[in-house]
Amino acid sequence: LADWTFTFQIPKLGLLLPENGERVGEFIIGDIGLHADYAEQTESQNIYLTAEWIQSRLKKRKKFDHKGTYGHALLICGSAGKVGAAILAAKACLRSGPGLLTVHSAGSSRLALQVAAPEAMFSTDRNDEVVSEIPDLDSYRAIGVGCGLGKAEATKAALAELLRAFQKPMVIDADALNLISENPDLWSLVPKGSILTPHPKEFERLFGKAADDFARLDLLRSEAIKRGIYILLKGADSVVATPEGICYFNSTGNPGMAKGGSGDVLTGIITGLLTHGYSPQEAAIVGVYEHGAAGDRAASRRGQESMTAGDLIEELRFV
Amino acid sequence: LADWTFTFQIPKLGLLLPENGERVGEFIIGDIGLHADYAEQTESQNIYLTAEWIQSRLKKRKKFDHKGTYGHALLICGSAGKVGAAILAAKACLRSGPGLLTVHSAGSSRLALQVAAPEAMFSTDRNDEVVSEIPDLDSYRAIGVGCGLGKAEATKAALAELLRAFQKPMVIDADALNLISENPDLWSLVPKGSILTPHPKEFERLFGKAADDFARLDLLRSEAIKRGIYILLKGADSVVATPEGICYFNSTGNPGMAKGGSGDVLTGIITGLLTHGYSPQEAAIVGVYEHGAAGDRAASRRGQESMTAGDLIEELRFV
Amino acid sequence: LADWTFTFQIPKLGLLLPENGERVGEFIIGDIGLHADYAEQTESQNIYLTAEWIQSRLKKRKKFDHKGTYGHALLICGSAGKVGAAILAAKACLRSGPGLLTVHSAGSSRLALQVAAPEAMFSTDRNDEVVSEIPDLDSYRAIGVGCGLGKAEATKAALAELLRAFQKPMVIDADALNLISENPDLWSLVPKGSILTPHPKEFERLFGKAADDFARLDLLRSEAIKRGIYILLKGADSVVATPEGICYFNSTGNPGMAKGGSGDVLTGIITGLLTHGYSPQEAAIVGVYEHGAAGDRAASRRGQESMTAGDLIEELRFV
Amino acid sequence: LADWTFTFQIPKLGLLLPENGERVGEFIIGDIGLHADYAEQTESQNIYLTAEWIQSRLKKRKKFDHKGTYGHALLICGSAGKVGAAILAAKACLRSGPGLLTVHSAGSSRLALQVAAPEAMFSTDRNDEVVSEIPDLDSYRAIGVGCGLGKAEATKAALAELLRAFQKPMVIDADALNLISENPDLWSLVPKGSILTPHPKEFERLFGKAADDFARLDLLRSEAIKRGIYILLKGADSVVATPEGICYFNSTGNPGMAKGGSGDVLTGIITGLLTHGYSPQEAAIVGVYEHGAAGDRAASRRGQESMTAGDLIEELRFV
Repeated sequence: LADWTFTFQIPKLGLLLPENGERVGEFIIGDIGLHADYAEQTESQNIYLTAEWIQSRLKKRKKFDHKGTYGHALLICGSAGKVGAAILAAKACLRSGPGLLTVHSAGSSRLALQVAAPEAMFSTDRNDEVVSEIPDLDSYRAIGVGCGLGKAEATKAALAELLRAFQKPMVIDADALNLISENPDLWSLVPKGSILTPHPKEFERLFGKAADDFARLDLLRSEAIKRGIYILLKGADSVVATPEGICYFNSTGNPGMAKGGSGDVLTGIITGLLTHGYSPQEAAIVGVYEHGAAGDRAASRRGQESMTAGDLIEELRFV
Repeated sequence: LADWTFTFQIPKLGLLLPENGERVGEFIIGDIGLHADYAEQTESQNIYLTAEWIQSRLKKRKKFDHKGTYGHALLICGSAGKVGAAILAAKACLRSGPGLLTVHSAGSSRLALQVAAPEAMFSTDRNDEVVSEIPDLDSYRAIGVGCGLGKAEATKAALAELLRAFQKPMVIDADALNLISENPDLWSLVPKGSILTPHPKEFERLFGKAADDFARLDLLRSEAIKRGIYILLKGADSVVATPEGICYFNSTGNPGMAKGGSGDVLTGIITGLLTHGYSPQEAAIVGVYEHGAAGDRAASRRGQESMTAGDLIEELRFV
Repeated sequence: LADWTFTFQIPKLGLLLPENGERVGEFIIGDIGLHADYAEQTESQNIYLTAEWIQSRLKKRKKFDHKGTYGHALLICGSAGKVGAAILAAKACLRSGPGLLTVHSAGSSRLALQVAAPEAMFSTDRNDEVVSEIPDLDSYRAIGVGCGLGKAEATKAALAELLRAFQKPMVIDADALNLISENPDLWSLVPKGSILTPHPKEFERLFGKAADDFARLDLLRSEAIKRGIYILLKGADSVVATPEGICYFNSTGNPGMAKGGSGDVLTGIITGLLTHGYSPQEAAIVGVYEHGAAGDRAASRRGQESMTAGDLIEELRFV
Repeated sequence: LADWTFTFQIPKLGLLLPENGERVGEFIIGDIGLHADYAEQTESQNIYLTAEWIQSRLKKRKKFDHKGTYGHALLICGSAGKVGAAILAAKACLRSGPGLLTVHSAGSSRLALQVAAPEAMFSTDRNDEVVSEIPDLDSYRAIGVGCGLGKAEATKAALAELLRAFQKPMVIDADALNLISENPDLWSLVPKGSILTPHPKEFERLFGKAADDFARLDLLRSEAIKRGIYILLKGADSVVATPEGICYFNSTGNPGMAKGGSGDVLTGIITGLLTHGYSPQEAAIVGVYEHGAAGDRAASRRGQESMTAGDLIEELRFV
């Protein structure tokens, strides 16, 4: 078992996989003077995200931009007892740059959301306990769906209605993924270019079990290609697989983020970026990187044990 | 397209208009040694606000002043699903110096507002969903109306009742402006000296489309003169047009403020200043300047992407 | 009109009265080398509070003290639309040292108070809108009553019941004072040693109009003696008159505190100190001083315009 | 009466007991050069906790850990008017490292908890006022029960059901302890290895009155042995007695923690640690130490008078 592994110039794929975790520990990259252009110009199916790579893709707000420039986001999240997931996603979304945000949730979620996130508007479902319908979607540039939704029959119907009604890429997480796993006929309705953000258990429910981490990476890549979607597999080195079959490995984050609510925050961030005008690929990649960077700041302020998902939101910066 | 424009002594009008934005970028003012008195003494219809100009107009609280000295403000804001707008306006108002604040809103807004802004009192509308009536107005020195109101029939009636009942200048924003656009007969009831705070879309609904930004500036000025009101046209360089036809251009703020809720905060600030004893002209000008200054502080603390309207409130200072 | 007045060794009485405010401005005390003991040993009916005087009276918590040592406080405050007053009093009380705090308020206040002040317990009135009954009082060491109560008939009855049931000194503020003004028969029930905290308007309702500030000071002193109570007359230089006829003039605070909610915070502080074991005289004097000191810290952090009553609570220190 | 006591190398037992408090004051440990190994190797029934001792037992999160690694905690806490206790326990638990947290409480607690602790899920009791039933327990690794529960008949039945249904060690506090005192037949259901956290009054109700502090310590130790549980007796030097009869004396904390809610925070912390994978002994000892360390940080930031139980949560670090 290793505490540290020293690697040259660029991390090797095997270092990034959970099943090697104990034999790798933390890895350190040693610069051996290879020409920087070399890595840039080498076509690879696997890219390790760096701060420079992200920074070069961050959008800058321009002086005469107005809130219309940055679009209107919709989050469809939360149910009785799981309003917190909607609160976390909403607050994270508000700190990721969209012009406006509306949250559609179960009727009983309204008060909690309005207190916690006064900058967001609220669309009230006629059902008090769960989401059972879809609001008019005309004004929304992007949608995030799933956090804290539950899997009620009425919610399944609402999800199907949503997937039918909204043709643009959206962010699909948590119980929305679980509903798709249990109702594979919904697959055909998922808009091309959408971003799915499963954790390993949700991934397995969606795509089946893989023999090992390498096989799982192959499965991830092939499903992204086959379905024309972005799949963000969450974990220590979160991976974003693109419809072109490229895998981007995240370099930020820490195990203090392995807590309830972290995923809701990520969904909020990516939905915000998509609304703001980032492409789905940029939104997924910038989102996962900045989510981890916020986690690293939270860990240095609070410690890995004591940090919460809410702390991540306070540490979002996009720098 | 320009990143920067260098201009001498004083910004020229064309630099302040959105349609020139891409050809101007950010502008830098170079001091070429013109006598400072010259600008002061030159009568101009267009004035560019500076920190010194604002500071010289800030009121100082005096030792034996009491809460009666600073008046009682009333905000008529918020409806089911848009309570957040009322919360933001209320919290901003409380940080802008009035002695007391009451918020009148839909019945279902009560709990959220009392938790979020315990320093404010709450006047409960008999209608749970929207504002449908006007409380007794005797004790209020100034009123702000419109944020998150919606455009329900009952609300339109309440707005008409308010405009009939309150003869002093008030702050009119958002849905109150939209209701006036749709019911132009309400124009005759708007008290002289009131401050209207439209964003460009709301401006267009109120006063029609202009051929270009210069024409819009002319329209802004002529409407302010014709109706005897202050019009604060929100944007990158917000402009306050006075009933005398002077246009004041704001010099603070940044595109991180182009987000839902920023306008609600501005309405709260100006209502607070008006209650505190500032004249409508001072309240509009000091308000827009300090709102932008708070935005600049929020941007340097949080970044333009991650700052929210709520952050502006935390950064209010009046210095 | 003066900006500044220079005075020797000790402030003169006239400098502390509002009607001289414009002719005094801020005063500066110049030390002319009088022997410090002299002031200490001179019997005076008027004492100007200093930091040293307060610090020497602050109690220190001892290692094996437990929450029972510091007593259980009860606040009877708040009604529909004025829950905020109860929230502010409760949060201030919690930061002033009692072992436990229960808030008794109208039924509809419960949720807001539990969210805002989770350290306090809540006693629910059967009436949803106003306080209409008194809980069992056996376990409480001190009680604060009045903030945001309103003047409903049912509340008047509850106040009378309270005054009959609780024989120990209590803190009486705001609408409880107004109810006593309107029902002078309640005077006979006010426990000896209680602390009344009127602002000038409430003082006038209670005790009548005085010809000038000197006459008002005489009235204050004579009422405190006659009724055997402490009267804290709030204002720029708040005065505490004791049953022995001594007047203590506060030296902390600033006009940024002239805002709704400041008084609720003061009531919470004094109730907390009384519960903690301070005598009524100490509680009134230490409370008013520390309330002003918190206000001075809030002003230096936020500015006088932007500070709120809630900020005072965050700045309480007792040092 | 002493302000300070100087003692050599290691505190003596008598210095740690409340009844000697006034004759000891604060004690200072003077190093007289005894070999450090000596204390380590001497078998003692009484151990004084040091920072080093705790730090060597803190678990480190590993890179590829996920929220499943850290388990799912359940808190059964809160009733109408005492939701605050559940809020404090929940927020403290969330900052103590578990992967997930669900709070089961009375129906009327739902909104307050979701606003205050959005990272937690909520399980709604069918009874609006008190806890009257137990949710399905399959997914929980550890349970904390008691804070703010009240002693309703329905709650007693639910507690019995819980003790029957959950065989693993749990944290039992406050009204759950009081219910056991009043219903000694429940003793037989308490799982071996559970952690009971009485304050001295609750201890007395559970185990009877002791003649003096030494006798109480004996009683504490013998009850822990007899029942096979951990008993954490709260106080200035909190003691954890183990089923093996060892007593661990805490060295952190201060009398500013002698306030309502401190105990709820402790229950949340220990439940979090137990869920995270600490053994009951480690959870109790690390929990009480870190709770006190957080209190010491809160005291240095806010002062002992002004700090609240909520402040402890903000200061949790586990370092």
